Amino acid sequence: MLKSRPIDWDAAYAGRADRMRASEIRELLKLLEQPDIISFAGGIPDPELFPTSAISDAYTATLTGPSGTRSLQYSVSEGYPPLRRWIVGLMARLGVSCGIDNIVITSGSQQGLDFLGKLLLSAGDTALVAAPTYLGALHAFNPYEPRYDVLRINELDRVNEIDAVQVRYRHAAAAATSRLALAYVVPDFANPTGDTLSEATRLRLLDLVAGLGVPLIEDAAYSALRFEGEPIRPCLALDIERCGHIDRSRVIYCGTFSKTISPGLRVGWVCAAHDLVQKLVLTKQAGDLHSATLNQVVMHQVAEAVYDQQVRTIVAVYAKRRDAMLAALARHMPDGVSWTRPQGGMFIWITLPASLDGAELLAASVAEERVAFVPGGAFFVDGSGRNTMRLSYSLQSESGIEEGIRRLGRLIARFISQSAPGSRATASPGRA
Amino acid sequence: MLKSRPIDWDAAYAGRADRMRASEIRELLKLLEQPDIISFAGGIPDPELFPTSAISDAYTATLTGPSGTRSLQYSVSEGYPPLRRWIVGLMARLGVSCGIDNIVITSGSQQGLDFLGKLLLSAGDTALVAAPTYLGALHAFNPYEPRYDVLRINELDRVNEIDAVQVRYRHAAAAATSRLALAYVVPDFANPTGDTLSEATRLRLLDLVAGLGVPLIEDAAYSALRFEGEPIRPCLALDIERCGHIDRSRVIYCGTFSKTISPGLRVGWVCAAHDLVQKLVLTKQAGDLHSATLNQVVMHQVAEAVYDQQVRTIVAVYAKRRDAMLAALARHMPDGVSWTRPQGGMFIWITLPASLDGAELLAASVAEERVAFVPGGAFFVDGSGRNTMRLSYSLQSESGIEEGIRRLGRLIARFISQSAPGSRATASPGRA
Repeated sequence: MLKSRPIDWDAAYAGRADRMRASEIRELLKLLEQPDIISFAGGIPDPELFPTSAISDAYTATLTGPSGTRSLQYSVSEGYPPLRRWIVGLMARLGVSCGIDNIVITSGSQQGLDFLGKLLLSAGDTALVAAPTYLGALHAFNPYEPRYDVLRINELDRVNEIDAVQVRYRHAAAAATSRLALAYVVPDFANPTGDTLSEATRLRLLDLVAGLGVPLIEDAAYSALRFEGEPIRPCLALDIERCGHIDRSRVIYCGTFSKTISPGLRVGWVCAAHDLVQKLVLTKQAGDLHSATLNQVVMHQVAEAVYDQQVRTIVAVYAKRRDAMLAALARHMPDGVSWTRPQGGMFIWITLPASLDGAELLAASVAEERVAFVPGGAFFVDGSGRNTMRLSYSLQSESGIEEGIRRLGRLIARFISQSAPGSRATASPGRA
Repeated sequence: MLKSRPIDWDAAYAGRADRMRASEIRELLKLLEQPDIISFAGGIPDPELFPTSAISDAYTATLTGPSGTRSLQYSVSEGYPPLRRWIVGLMARLGVSCGIDNIVITSGSQQGLDFLGKLLLSAGDTALVAAPTYLGALHAFNPYEPRYDVLRINELDRVNEIDAVQVRYRHAAAAATSRLALAYVVPDFANPTGDTLSEATRLRLLDLVAGLGVPLIEDAAYSALRFEGEPIRPCLALDIERCGHIDRSRVIYCGTFSKTISPGLRVGWVCAAHDLVQKLVLTKQAGDLHSATLNQVVMHQVAEAVYDQQVRTIVAVYAKRRDAMLAALARHMPDGVSWTRPQGGMFIWITLPASLDGAELLAASVAEERVAFVPGGAFFVDGSGRNTMRLSYSLQSESGIEEGIRRLGRLIARFISQSAPGSRATASPGRA
């Protein structure tokens, strides 16, 4: 028997593991799951709104019905055909004409993002992402070792010639000897900003990605949660109109039931050209064979039974909470603080005076005011955004929102006065 | 608006996508799901044996109980703590002393293999795998672009000095300017051979991987399905005995409930050193956030309630089917055909005379005899094994096994007689 030295894991890991690090924010937030904290951090659905009895009924009906044992067996990597057909119907209502072969079921849209990173990103490739953007997309892409370039979406509406913008992205990639591989957006009620891209912006974005020759990943996680205003067609629908058929489109739509029905069942989907979907099916097969058979069967039944009603229910509640937060922000935030006014989704994005730091503010906010949120810096790939923060209203009652924003406004006002020239030295050591 | 050319997906895919191709065998087998086919191809559990009512009861109890809504919510990437604690108890019974921080829940052990490939394999690294080995492991590893070297496990028992074997693997990797990254084995009732490694072989394998300085992935998918003989401790247990603590061990144990309770819920686990498990949790978070919360809660309840009884039930049935298949093989196989005698699991491995080809035989078998199996060649990374085939007895009744093997024996006898010198020209065109 040889002497057994302990393994050196750092030497054993692949290079990409360097890019897979614990999020400090997430670790911090774990510590904040205390009942006396008013948390605007989560960004997750209110479990009180889940259609629990419809879900329970569907499990019972499935497991005690004639297909009970089959729903516990292995199933195809593409996903449960009746669920995929239901999604085809949903996509049609969104203006996307497609067939069942354009749909693959994933374990939430997060898995769609991971698989798309796997399929589209080689080490050193460039991914174009907004700044700020969804942190989970960066986590999904990071193991495939891309570099990032900031997709300046607002700029698209201001320039006359999108060709010039393309050239700039091409030059930046070429200077880094990088291949432009994909663009990623959250067009509706984005995480973290709550912003929505207008149809005109979507069309210019389609011009840009067509000119660059890259696929566009459209993360539609929050799209169903529109409180007001007219729905804007998905980028995928607009692109199909331009190119004639989904199988010719470069847009990859990631959908999910996590924000509408339940995130705990882990059922999402990707809708895209058949060529890509076939590759995703192979990725799924290699990755985890298939999503839980039973959960797909149940999700199909629940979606059939309650989807529209369920969306109406949660939209009504979240809209009131957004209203409560906007009203509280107007009442309690000091001058120099601005915020977005989302038409749907779960988030409001706060911009603080440039001298303030969201991470420092969080430490003080938890210690002194028992209010939690997510500092905005982590959502930026370019190191900017330290003076921003993300607030979610989805989990708090209207009275909790009022109280939490009141405390937060008080704290921010103190920070602003302390950060005024000459007052730095008096800053509390507690927020270091 | 720019002219929108259709996207060239082949140019859009990352280099690794070349390694992600549809398995011809799997595509063929899809065509074989016809009721008049006697299939030994599957290698999946018999759904009639699922503890469906226990599972149904657990869903009802969970969803109508006080934690109903929580089981539909997002949850931690590590997995549901009570389930992880239950698995700690199971591992203890297998001789593995560990804590909850050594366990991460995955969506089946397939996802464990994907994540381990992601964490441990850089492009060009060498993975040591048996030939034949589990095809799904190769599918999981392939997107990370390893090269493979054949782990000649039987050889380990025959050599005096394992150092010499190490040197050979090191030289082979160095010659390919490759880093030796991992070794992968299925020690109990392996897919596809049904073979089990003795304790002595496991110890020599541990010597080898310790000498090479690589982690050893122990795929225990079938380990619970022992029909007879004494259980052999997992490599992980043996390694902990040598190195003193799981956190010093290089063995990574992949377990699953897919072969014992139900594959359709997609619940498995990895048990390993805390350092690696932490990295796997980050991989899980980036990959799909967490496995379905509800399914983990239910799996915990079902495991608590019926695990041991369930294992006894399925082992009794599968043992009889193995007996039936071994008896039928002895009765019906012509001279020149040999097979394994598994002590558990789902597979018997057939070696045909060298002149025969399993893939050709399958085509004829389906066309002429309506019997399906998996040709063995796909399980080999070195291109050998064309004259082999995998038979699974898990899904067939004893009478179906007798009839299927009778037909297969008849066909093989004909193939052998046709492949005799001088008779090639008379071979049926049907098996081309």
